[in-house]
Amino acid sequence: MIVAVIGDSSCSAEEARLAEAVGEELAQCGATVICGGLGGVMEAVCRGAKSKGGLTVGILPGEDSSMANPYVDVPIATGVGYARNMAVVKSAEAVIAIGGSYGTLSEIAYALKRDIPVIGLNTWSLSRNGREDGSIIRVHSAVEAVEKAISLAKRRVGYG
Amino acid sequence: MIVAVIGDSSCSAEEARLAEAVGEELAQCGATVICGGLGGVMEAVCRGAKSKGGLTVGILPGEDSSMANPYVDVPIATGVGYARNMAVVKSAEAVIAIGGSYGTLSEIAYALKRDIPVIGLNTWSLSRNGREDGSIIRVHSAVEAVEKAISLAKRRVGYG
Amino acid sequence: MIVAVIGDSSCSAEEARLAEAVGEELAQCGATVICGGLGGVMEAVCRGAKSKGGLTVGILPGEDSSMANPYVDVPIATGVGYARNMAVVKSAEAVIAIGGSYGTLSEIAYALKRDIPVIGLNTWSLSRNGREDGSIIRVHSAVEAVEKAISLAKRRVGYG
Amino acid sequence: MIVAVIGDSSCSAEEARLAEAVGEELAQCGATVICGGLGGVMEAVCRGAKSKGGLTVGILPGEDSSMANPYVDVPIATGVGYARNMAVVKSAEAVIAIGGSYGTLSEIAYALKRDIPVIGLNTWSLSRNGREDGSIIRVHSAVEAVEKAISLAKRRVGYG
Repeated sequence: MIVAVIGDSSCSAEEARLAEAVGEELAQCGATVICGGLGGVMEAVCRGAKSKGGLTVGILPGEDSSMANPYVDVPIATGVGYARNMAVVKSAEAVIAIGGSYGTLSEIAYALKRDIPVIGLNTWSLSRNGREDGSIIRVHSAVEAVEKAISLAKRRVGYG
Repeated sequence: MIVAVIGDSSCSAEEARLAEAVGEELAQCGATVICGGLGGVMEAVCRGAKSKGGLTVGILPGEDSSMANPYVDVPIATGVGYARNMAVVKSAEAVIAIGGSYGTLSEIAYALKRDIPVIGLNTWSLSRNGREDGSIIRVHSAVEAVEKAISLAKRRVGYG
Repeated sequence: MIVAVIGDSSCSAEEARLAEAVGEELAQCGATVICGGLGGVMEAVCRGAKSKGGLTVGILPGEDSSMANPYVDVPIATGVGYARNMAVVKSAEAVIAIGGSYGTLSEIAYALKRDIPVIGLNTWSLSRNGREDGSIIRVHSAVEAVEKAISLAKRRVGYG
Repeated sequence: MIVAVIGDSSCSAEEARLAEAVGEELAQCGATVICGGLGGVMEAVCRGAKSKGGLTVGILPGEDSSMANPYVDVPIATGVGYARNMAVVKSAEAVIAIGGSYGTLSEIAYALKRDIPVIGLNTWSLSRNGREDGSIIRVHSAVEAVEKAISLAKRRVGYG
């Protein structure tokens, strides 16, 4: 199972703590972590996953694998710039968003367009024409985020 | 000056009317219209622009220019799927969003990330961590949308 | 009709002369010129086309339209890096290659994969497993290149 | 170390045998195999690598990971179509080309543009303006291909 974790390349200490805990939980559940491969939330989630022996994949915007954070096992140098945001979420069975700015918002949009479940920790809320869009599933802890992601990912791929 | 108009490939009659009026206004202001090249809002804005002698560019997701709506003068067959959403907005000095679903949301996100002004007609609202994000400039008519887009685009490119 | 002209961003004086003449001929035939939007062969072909009142489209790798050469009418800022090479040729009914290095070779490959005719002026030759691949149509002048491109493009789109 | 193996999605029995042997050798050298994730040469190299306990990454053109061949451990659903060809080679420290058609040629071009070494087994030859381009390193067996790839990749990343 592959779970994407998305968020900013610069983040608060609390977001980094959350991301690291999410990475640890995902690795302990046997899930591969996929992310954008850079710093901030992306680095923290990879560090957490590696600390528990997980596998981490970083989908980079640039042409050079050496831009990956040191906790990425498989760096993918896409060379397609921020079009790589699409690849990050489409490769996953579920997405966990932690904080995040407009790049993260584009990833949430791409995931929802493909009906990939998005679990949110202190992230964007959406409404359209004045009506709230409830597609992002709100949670309040790393453990809750991972439980929700794994259970929805299992349902999506038809096992469990 | 190039203005992007974004919205769904299937849209309500009212959204189509708005998009057509936006296309007419843009052409009358001498602006080139860029869009995703398909149906719905994209077709309506191109039809409006052509009816007033404007130039229209359609940035298609697929590999085949013949997928463009009949009012596109310059069809670009990118072959990069919905990564073309990025190209639609980054090529413009301002963006007008009309209604729209998750694809449109990804375009709004890419535009805001690049500080390209986004003018919204009955489209998404965003908030982050409970606080409203006021980046999308709300307007209530096609004329107002185009006036705002042109004036912000001029400021952006440093003339006018 | 849209014809792509491909070649290096730095080129010899002779290649620039050829490209400029190709641009002039294409404009006189009423064809829109599409290219990668940067310097060298791309700039020369746009300069030629503009001198005869043609329309020019530049498909840029970066996120910033201001990188286009001054003879591009419609700059498209794709943001997808050299993946834009694919968009340059797939948007065209025929491709004219002038000189060129590995970027040009990737464009030739993408065009041939889609059965888009490639006309070559002093460009790559291909062989596979020791057998020559005759897909690139060799010509020896700008006039011949454009005649061939237009006639093959017409056949491809089914008119003429 | 990551080595890309490129070739057609439909291939001869001999090419499949070569690709499988290349996959076995790469896994035995501890290299991760990256490829386009589909059938033919891509499936054979992954099958070989898995039979020796290697790790395999498939960079898919589409939006759906389930298109990956059954021997891919980490399927990446890029959604960017054949722009994914760029990601396949840019993520690698060396590239082994086995046979191949125009898609493979585009990958060879992207690799050479980035100075990533390309080792060829019964694949394309290039010449430019009548002069042979010797950039593709010709070998005649799977073992030789892998030895060459590993030694050049090591030199490239600066160890060994």
